[in-house]
Amino acid sequence: MDHAPEVLLQLFSLLLAAKVGDEIFKRLDQPTLIGEILAGIVVGPAVLGWYEVNEATGLFAEIGVVLLLFRVGIETRLADLLRVGLPAGAVGLLGVLLPFGGGVAVGLLFGHSAEVTMFIAAAMVATSVGVTSRVLGALRAIATRSGRVILGAAIIDDILAMIILAVATGMAAGGVNIGRIFVLVVVAVAFVAIVVVAGTGLLRRRPALLTVPAFAETPFLPGMIIMLGLAALSAAIGLAAIIGAFLAGMVVGESSERHALEEEVAPVAAFFTPFFFGAIGAQIDLVGLANATALALLAAVTLVAVGTKFLGSFLGAIGMGLRRRVLIGWGMVPRGEVGIVVAGLGLQMGVVDGSIYSVVVGMAVITTLIVPPVVPALVRWAESSITGVTDRHPAPEQAEP
Amino acid sequence: MDHAPEVLLQLFSLLLAAKVGDEIFKRLDQPTLIGEILAGIVVGPAVLGWYEVNEATGLFAEIGVVLLLFRVGIETRLADLLRVGLPAGAVGLLGVLLPFGGGVAVGLLFGHSAEVTMFIAAAMVATSVGVTSRVLGALRAIATRSGRVILGAAIIDDILAMIILAVATGMAAGGVNIGRIFVLVVVAVAFVAIVVVAGTGLLRRRPALLTVPAFAETPFLPGMIIMLGLAALSAAIGLAAIIGAFLAGMVVGESSERHALEEEVAPVAAFFTPFFFGAIGAQIDLVGLANATALALLAAVTLVAVGTKFLGSFLGAIGMGLRRRVLIGWGMVPRGEVGIVVAGLGLQMGVVDGSIYSVVVGMAVITTLIVPPVVPALVRWAESSITGVTDRHPAPEQAEP
Repeated sequence: MDHAPEVLLQLFSLLLAAKVGDEIFKRLDQPTLIGEILAGIVVGPAVLGWYEVNEATGLFAEIGVVLLLFRVGIETRLADLLRVGLPAGAVGLLGVLLPFGGGVAVGLLFGHSAEVTMFIAAAMVATSVGVTSRVLGALRAIATRSGRVILGAAIIDDILAMIILAVATGMAAGGVNIGRIFVLVVVAVAFVAIVVVAGTGLLRRRPALLTVPAFAETPFLPGMIIMLGLAALSAAIGLAAIIGAFLAGMVVGESSERHALEEEVAPVAAFFTPFFFGAIGAQIDLVGLANATALALLAAVTLVAVGTKFLGSFLGAIGMGLRRRVLIGWGMVPRGEVGIVVAGLGLQMGVVDGSIYSVVVGMAVITTLIVPPVVPALVRWAESSITGVTDRHPAPEQAEP
Repeated sequence: MDHAPEVLLQLFSLLLAAKVGDEIFKRLDQPTLIGEILAGIVVGPAVLGWYEVNEATGLFAEIGVVLLLFRVGIETRLADLLRVGLPAGAVGLLGVLLPFGGGVAVGLLFGHSAEVTMFIAAAMVATSVGVTSRVLGALRAIATRSGRVILGAAIIDDILAMIILAVATGMAAGGVNIGRIFVLVVVAVAFVAIVVVAGTGLLRRRPALLTVPAFAETPFLPGMIIMLGLAALSAAIGLAAIIGAFLAGMVVGESSERHALEEEVAPVAAFFTPFFFGAIGAQIDLVGLANATALALLAAVTLVAVGTKFLGSFLGAIGMGLRRRVLIGWGMVPRGEVGIVVAGLGLQMGVVDGSIYSVVVGMAVITTLIVPPVVPALVRWAESSITGVTDRHPAPEQAEP
């Protein structure tokens, strides 16, 4: 008497596999999200075929990363972010320019057209802050200076990536409209500024505002409504949905009952997040990578993606000390779902073929898998206030300021 | 840079509208789920068109009702259910037979074929226990005798409805396979019995079993995995997914850390449930009902659906006292999503047309809307242990046994 037994079975398979992966990596004292991504590869089409990213399960993945950034936003205060504005801006800018240049070089070197090259480069620029913030959160290091620079840089990063994607899609559609791109950027910057300034200002003046409605005993449901609204708006103007979710978190994090909010968001995020990491793994295509040309391109794209992002972010973080600069550079490396989405768009527009799509997805998954194992040691090395905390806590939590 | 801005916007619209409806009905001191259903009508295709039930949003609705019954299961103990086994069985049986007979009579009276008549009758038999249990939960009346009879009857009800639906789809497909139906029933009964007996037995012997994994600090995530698994299995063998979810709740409710489990499931359910009630409203089709024939059939189907279900359940509850019999009869009336799913199946098989589909959905929505306003008064009248509690609590919670 039910219309969705298959989808329920897919969700069950992924959640069970992700938690088995989580369990194994926790016992190995390794970052658990890697276990979840590998579980996604195993139950996904590449191996068992019990799970696939479709319209329904893809929404769970999307809400998973939206909730991840919402939680990070809740524990991020505007003033703390503004204090690192300058290094964050430089990290965001250089962390986009170098990968873009590297992507163009690799694309042309492998003999691809300007259109294809632009899509490869566009998929290489944007950091997937979800991965890094999940690891930092597990180490309670979101509120460190490095953590804040990474978060601030991720916003700049996403706006710049949006411009590059607009150019890439413009070229693919037959012409780049400079006026349209200018409008996009102005709207995006205005969106971020207005939400942050007006939103946090309002909640700071009226910190009990979210519990005024009779249906809201805590700020949880009003917060979720704001999260969905700003995520949708952010996506509608061309930014990633997670940027809106992060801003929503910053706004509702000013609420007087922030603790109750965090307590109620935590289980919802714990339920959804495995679908996000699992979906990253489930999108890898082992067959599409099983030839020498694809593997050579994958190796080149991945090496350049890692090297240029690390170097650009490291250079941008000038004046923050060698250790923090290394942590920030490394923390910006994961491309995760952003690269996959860009490649998917190129595939959908008929610009990139299945082989290049597989390469870009492979790069996104590899950059996501290599970063977390090293982050705990880097955090201990760079942020002396954080000591001896291992990846035991599945969620971002409050750290010393 | 996002693939689902429209879906996020739909979720935002529905959640916002549902909570506005919730707010209005809470201030009017009326059952808030009616506000959520009406909000679904307003933002749905019938009026504003900001929300529609598609593959992605439909999954949220499905998980919403699955979580609703999972929570009810958590606070239902097997022994309590077995104690009301006899009246629950009689209520389930007569509460299906009378509506079935009534549905056949109405279908033939309006000159429909045997196939169409079977679908109308099939859509009229199954109670949507989600609606009633949501209202009983808000009144803290799940654990009353009447509440338990309703829950037990809902399981019998669903097994019988599955048989009738199997006959209806068999007739539509050209032949009823008695052997197949017999297997279905045996499998369904075995599923319920094995899950309940083996599952609760295992957890009762090892009440800390769910927190054995390192990833599980509370039974929450293991519980959610079990919920999805049993819901999928239940749906796969032809029962409603909510039956599996209810059984999963009964099993994990034996866990030693049941309180932590309930606390973490609560916000997840609070987030998902409005999508279930909103989706019921969003599926109504005002245009399809805007003619005299459809309205006459709607009136007849609804009157018969209400009268036969009430009478059948009232008769089945013999020996429980007039007041409890009235409460049980009335509590079994809502057809909700079950009727809609059956009608949708008939539409998909090409047996029923759009007009009859609209009529059945209209009946499902009306029976769902009329029940909750009367339940609080009936509960106070029938269950003297429950006094003076109004619909202030958005979730099922523990009541005096």
